[in-house]
Amino acid sequence: MILLLGASGHVGQAFRRALDRRAMPARSLARAEVDYTHAGELAAFLRRERPTFVINAAGYTGKPNVDACETRRAETLAGNTLFPLKLAMACAELGIPLGQVSSGCIYAGCLVERAGVWEAEKDVNLPEVRRLALESPHRLRGFDESMPPNFSFRDGPCSFYSGTKALGEEAIAGIGEQYVWRLRIPFDHRDGSRNYLSKLLRYDRVYDALNSLSHLDDFAEACLDGIELRIPFGTYNVVNPGFVSAREVVERLRLRLGLTREFRFWTDDAEFYRTGATALRSNCILDAGKLLRAGVSLRPVDEALDDALTRWLPETPGVVR
Amino acid sequence: MILLLGASGHVGQAFRRALDRRAMPARSLARAEVDYTHAGELAAFLRRERPTFVINAAGYTGKPNVDACETRRAETLAGNTLFPLKLAMACAELGIPLGQVSSGCIYAGCLVERAGVWEAEKDVNLPEVRRLALESPHRLRGFDESMPPNFSFRDGPCSFYSGTKALGEEAIAGIGEQYVWRLRIPFDHRDGSRNYLSKLLRYDRVYDALNSLSHLDDFAEACLDGIELRIPFGTYNVVNPGFVSAREVVERLRLRLGLTREFRFWTDDAEFYRTGATALRSNCILDAGKLLRAGVSLRPVDEALDDALTRWLPETPGVVR
Repeated sequence: MILLLGASGHVGQAFRRALDRRAMPARSLARAEVDYTHAGELAAFLRRERPTFVINAAGYTGKPNVDACETRRAETLAGNTLFPLKLAMACAELGIPLGQVSSGCIYAGCLVERAGVWEAEKDVNLPEVRRLALESPHRLRGFDESMPPNFSFRDGPCSFYSGTKALGEEAIAGIGEQYVWRLRIPFDHRDGSRNYLSKLLRYDRVYDALNSLSHLDDFAEACLDGIELRIPFGTYNVVNPGFVSAREVVERLRLRLGLTREFRFWTDDAEFYRTGATALRSNCILDAGKLLRAGVSLRPVDEALDDALTRWLPETPGVVR
Repeated sequence: MILLLGASGHVGQAFRRALDRRAMPARSLARAEVDYTHAGELAAFLRRERPTFVINAAGYTGKPNVDACETRRAETLAGNTLFPLKLAMACAELGIPLGQVSSGCIYAGCLVERAGVWEAEKDVNLPEVRRLALESPHRLRGFDESMPPNFSFRDGPCSFYSGTKALGEEAIAGIGEQYVWRLRIPFDHRDGSRNYLSKLLRYDRVYDALNSLSHLDDFAEACLDGIELRIPFGTYNVVNPGFVSAREVVERLRLRLGLTREFRFWTDDAEFYRTGATALRSNCILDAGKLLRAGVSLRPVDEALDDALTRWLPETPGVVR
């Protein structure tokens, strides 16, 4: 039996759907049932139920957005760093493998090929990078799992959220058998406050940047594929291969959803951060090669975006904002 | 056998001295010997050696001072929050009681009696509080252990250091049997960079505030007394009863060490923080009543200060700065 924590969140819901689709025996545990953040109750539950695998999709992302993590620091640390550590230790003690949902937002930038050499560049909005994205995308590459996070407390600046996620990975490293699955800007066809496509539709103005994205169902399916295929334990970037700019995604939204309105964009970072955003945003490209080489399939980001827009399900039926 | 972690630090050294004085069988473990911050190595070591008690005097305080913790956030969290959690879980698993050195700097202010009602006041430098300290000290009281930290990530503002110490207490709460010993501004007769009295002697200008203090040897002796007396597990403010202003301590230094030079003071907080300090400083009074009622003796702060100055041991023999 697989134990699923955080089943009520949007990532947890995707896991629940994927588990059900595969008819994998799984139990979702709510905190109202067992306060699993309490180390003693967690250990007692695991000892009693002996799950064969634990998926932790619980975490603290901030509401309405990541800015909230800058002030709710205790909650952010408890959810993203301390709880994963408690869970990893409790699982390791009983020999239960763990799948921890992490985030790609612990990186900033991408790799750029300059005169035959690949160099890390922290700013995806650099004119050089934007130009390469359009003209020579093969000269841009994502960070792979061998590269240490560069949008973290150790290598900042970073948002408080990103700092706690990077430290969460670090805290559990080497404690038992585990997958660390890095999700990056989730989207799917279900309109809602946590969906990147919905966010783009609802923002007054859009922040344009190059990014890797994760189709939410693709993410959950890829994680479960990894478990079923018994790929080596370790850290995996679970993103749809490729990258897109917010501007391109907006253009697809307009075309595929038949929108006539114009979208406005922030002219630059200074303007974006001046008008309310307190947490630095991570914009980055991640390399999904390790997961693909392990034998797990992931659609290219273009294909996943097209699919989400083809099946688009507005939150209010018939109303596409 | 008692296991002592962090024995090379100034708090650890005080424990080592106190353990030796009592001839309590104890082993100091250095990270060079066993990397006890690694959960697996820690668990294996504890399982093999089976100490009867673990004292954790390791932590990250920042060098040269607490300002460093504002930028070394990963190290600060790892040392003050994550490691105590790992240790508490590992000890709980084996039924080994833990003594965790915490800090009183998770509080700001004191309690003030106003018209018969005790109210928390966050600023010990308020003219009203300063006046009461001189004229009616019985109308000021320290925070006791039942009161939640108010200089923490949950109840800020706070320094990053204080946030991680408060969260460390919270992280380990309820995990096994444990003492949480709160140290507050350590001093003793040994001149050195970690001694409050030495700091006062070396500062260009002194920040004046009311505070509780802990004589370092008194602290370690009181903690060991608690273990030997088997007082109830829980959190204890381990400070010398009473409070003093930095101005009073400076006056004692001048008198007792025969200094002729004048000391200069910051005129106000604004000036202090404008000229380099980045981390907010905690200034607070703590109530030691719980420990005293449990049967552990602690000298009043006046007596402990006098003793330290009577036995004053300059770092460079013969040179009192």
